[in-house]
Amino acid sequence: MDSRVINFIEQNKDRFVEELKAFLRIPSISTDPKYKKDVRDCAQYVAAELKRIGIEDARLCETAGHPIVYAQWLQAPGRPTVLFYGHYDVQPVDPLNLWLSPPFEPDIRSGELYARGSADDKGQVFMHFKSLEAHFKNSGKLPVNVKILIEGEEECGSLNLDKFISDNKEMLKADLVVISDTPMFARGVPSICYGLRGLVYFQIDLTGTSTDLHSGSFGGTVANPAYVAARLLGEMKDPEGRVTIPGFYDDVKPLTGRERQEYASLPFDVEKYRRELGAPELWGEKGFTPLEQIWARPTFEVNGIVSGFTGEGAKTVIPARAMAKVSMRLVPDQDPDKIARLFEEHLRKVCPKTVELTITRMHGGKAWLAPIDHPAMAAASRAYQKGFGKKPVFVREGGSIPVVSTFAELLKIPSVLIGIGLPDENAHAPNEKLDLGNFQGGILSTAHLYEELAQI
Amino acid sequence: MDSRVINFIEQNKDRFVEELKAFLRIPSISTDPKYKKDVRDCAQYVAAELKRIGIEDARLCETAGHPIVYAQWLQAPGRPTVLFYGHYDVQPVDPLNLWLSPPFEPDIRSGELYARGSADDKGQVFMHFKSLEAHFKNSGKLPVNVKILIEGEEECGSLNLDKFISDNKEMLKADLVVISDTPMFARGVPSICYGLRGLVYFQIDLTGTSTDLHSGSFGGTVANPAYVAARLLGEMKDPEGRVTIPGFYDDVKPLTGRERQEYASLPFDVEKYRRELGAPELWGEKGFTPLEQIWARPTFEVNGIVSGFTGEGAKTVIPARAMAKVSMRLVPDQDPDKIARLFEEHLRKVCPKTVELTITRMHGGKAWLAPIDHPAMAAASRAYQKGFGKKPVFVREGGSIPVVSTFAELLKIPSVLIGIGLPDENAHAPNEKLDLGNFQGGILSTAHLYEELAQI
Repeated sequence: MDSRVINFIEQNKDRFVEELKAFLRIPSISTDPKYKKDVRDCAQYVAAELKRIGIEDARLCETAGHPIVYAQWLQAPGRPTVLFYGHYDVQPVDPLNLWLSPPFEPDIRSGELYARGSADDKGQVFMHFKSLEAHFKNSGKLPVNVKILIEGEEECGSLNLDKFISDNKEMLKADLVVISDTPMFARGVPSICYGLRGLVYFQIDLTGTSTDLHSGSFGGTVANPAYVAARLLGEMKDPEGRVTIPGFYDDVKPLTGRERQEYASLPFDVEKYRRELGAPELWGEKGFTPLEQIWARPTFEVNGIVSGFTGEGAKTVIPARAMAKVSMRLVPDQDPDKIARLFEEHLRKVCPKTVELTITRMHGGKAWLAPIDHPAMAAASRAYQKGFGKKPVFVREGGSIPVVSTFAELLKIPSVLIGIGLPDENAHAPNEKLDLGNFQGGILSTAHLYEELAQI
Repeated sequence: MDSRVINFIEQNKDRFVEELKAFLRIPSISTDPKYKKDVRDCAQYVAAELKRIGIEDARLCETAGHPIVYAQWLQAPGRPTVLFYGHYDVQPVDPLNLWLSPPFEPDIRSGELYARGSADDKGQVFMHFKSLEAHFKNSGKLPVNVKILIEGEEECGSLNLDKFISDNKEMLKADLVVISDTPMFARGVPSICYGLRGLVYFQIDLTGTSTDLHSGSFGGTVANPAYVAARLLGEMKDPEGRVTIPGFYDDVKPLTGRERQEYASLPFDVEKYRRELGAPELWGEKGFTPLEQIWARPTFEVNGIVSGFTGEGAKTVIPARAMAKVSMRLVPDQDPDKIARLFEEHLRKVCPKTVELTITRMHGGKAWLAPIDHPAMAAASRAYQKGFGKKPVFVREGGSIPVVSTFAELLKIPSVLIGIGLPDENAHAPNEKLDLGNFQGGILSTAHLYEELAQI
């Protein structure tokens, strides 16, 4: 890469941080209607910043909720088109009293920038802006065509994003998506995320009798929905921690030997992990390490359950009803619709005829796995190595990032997840922070990334 | 029995009902502090009524709550002493709008007297008073020595009764207790209750981690207390409906062949029972009829459970904690302390080390079984047959009547439970009622009862 770009990034280091502080001062809390104007101000700030760095075609796109900022620069004919996705909205700040400095008054302590949104996701969005600026300012152009989509509703469920993407498929057409909204595996371990788990989620309602019954007068003659729910849910896993739904594992893509080797080589302290969670002992599917369990194995969880008397004291009631929320984390190549069907069929089969069963399927999504041998992945790896002086590791995430699935499904293009947050960055908690060394390394890495992606 | 007594009861029928109405007009709701004065007025009414019928030594005994009325007539030397127990307080009346006539304005419709307390327990208490009056008015004396204890806190848990009995053991010394606070098995089926179930009740708390966890980021590596609770509770019974706690059935007194025969001959419509409960199917321990299951078999019930997210929608949380309320109905000769110990030991043994378990034992009590061959039982049977023209059946109750255990434990005397309510009398619901034919038959029966008990 042009050494002027590298020098520019080095020389403007402090200015970049000052500019990021201005971005962070806007309290763009998307979940709270009180901040509606601030969210719009923030969108306008983003569009203005994009123009300032050289992307003239930047604008606010109205949605039913907060505006989406869209920008594009398409003057690299014959070169790939990269769609960069990020979000400018932030999480709420409660409990405010736990913050050591006010959440919207950025404060640097020990090389870390404390502010709401510093890591999630304003700092990471801004890192891309600054690397694009470095290219513009030194060569008057970018190495690839760039489309930029920065939404303002990620922290409240991206309610209007799918429709926007679906309505603007042509405009958003690109060769790949780049997202920086995932953490590094650990400090000093640059990471590329290549896999996410999917989800199916259900509410289950059981009804035994018309009303709650006295456990003395009737106990022994009727099924108790609280008990039936317990038994049904308890039997969804075997003592080895495997889900008992027939066919559940049929489409699970096994970990490759290389993956297992790489995960094993990651600096992961099982005992520290257990201690930090406050668990007496860890528990998971036999035959897999914790990282394998989180990244590559499906789960069955009871997310909530309620039935009968739950107040202080004792009430001798046989509840008429029981309700449970359950979900399964899915991995490639499990199909959420198929798993949902298998679960429903199994539950209906094992549920006794003594209760009425209602199953309600709720939200969910497909697992995602990037083709690890896609040229973009290699490009990202080279860019990271140049930016951080260290070969990045390939990791997965146990959760879902719905927009990744949306891009895969609607635009049929791969995503590269290259984030520079840290696991202890407090993304959704008080004292959110961004390591400024990682911010600087991230600007350099993404400058390299756009350059490297020109070659694929 | 002296035919004058029988004639007296017949001739004063209408007066008895009018007097009962006056008793029922006093709103002696013991749970509501607003009615404190009415409760006391009612106690005074009871004491005055006892004097009026001929028992001079009748008085109010103060307690920490509502007063107890105590009276005695001990002028039958060489004859047994009968302790009659009842209560003058009544249940609250909500929802008031469902009453067809005001709860404290007694109203007769189709031979039934509608009023709060008509069946539970004022009508049944008054029936004893009137039979005692019939003896007094016609022979100037009673066939046995009589002690009368009418409390005013039965509907709020008899909070001060145990202490009163314990403090007054000598005064209350008797050969047996008579209680009329249980229903007949069915209309036209006079019943003597000779068995009650006991109870042990627990709260169980499970803690998995310090805080709720994101099911994506951590799911698969930690035990989920909601799931663990489900599995543990589900495994407390086997598919045949038998409790799996080792030793649980060791002391269960088996039903005798005669009991099973008698229960089978009772007019019990299983399909009607199921329909009225609104249950799709009944479910209970294999090998027993519903009546046997309720009366003579122990149970394990989940009375309540709560964990995690139970609101609208979906939240992908692994709960940090789960709480359940569970109880076991006990039968003779299961000892509550032993069963509690077996349950705790079993639960601690099967509970995985992945969660922290707290077991809290709550209230409970012993099961009770009257010696069916005690002369008092035969006396009650003869009295009932004379009063109703029909041999009574011997039945049990699935619930507990704590005072029966208290009498058994503190005074070491048997109780005879001879009630004339009906199963559909709405004891704790709107439109409580008393069948006036049963009231009249009850007065006659209890007049016979005191006479019969003189012979034992």
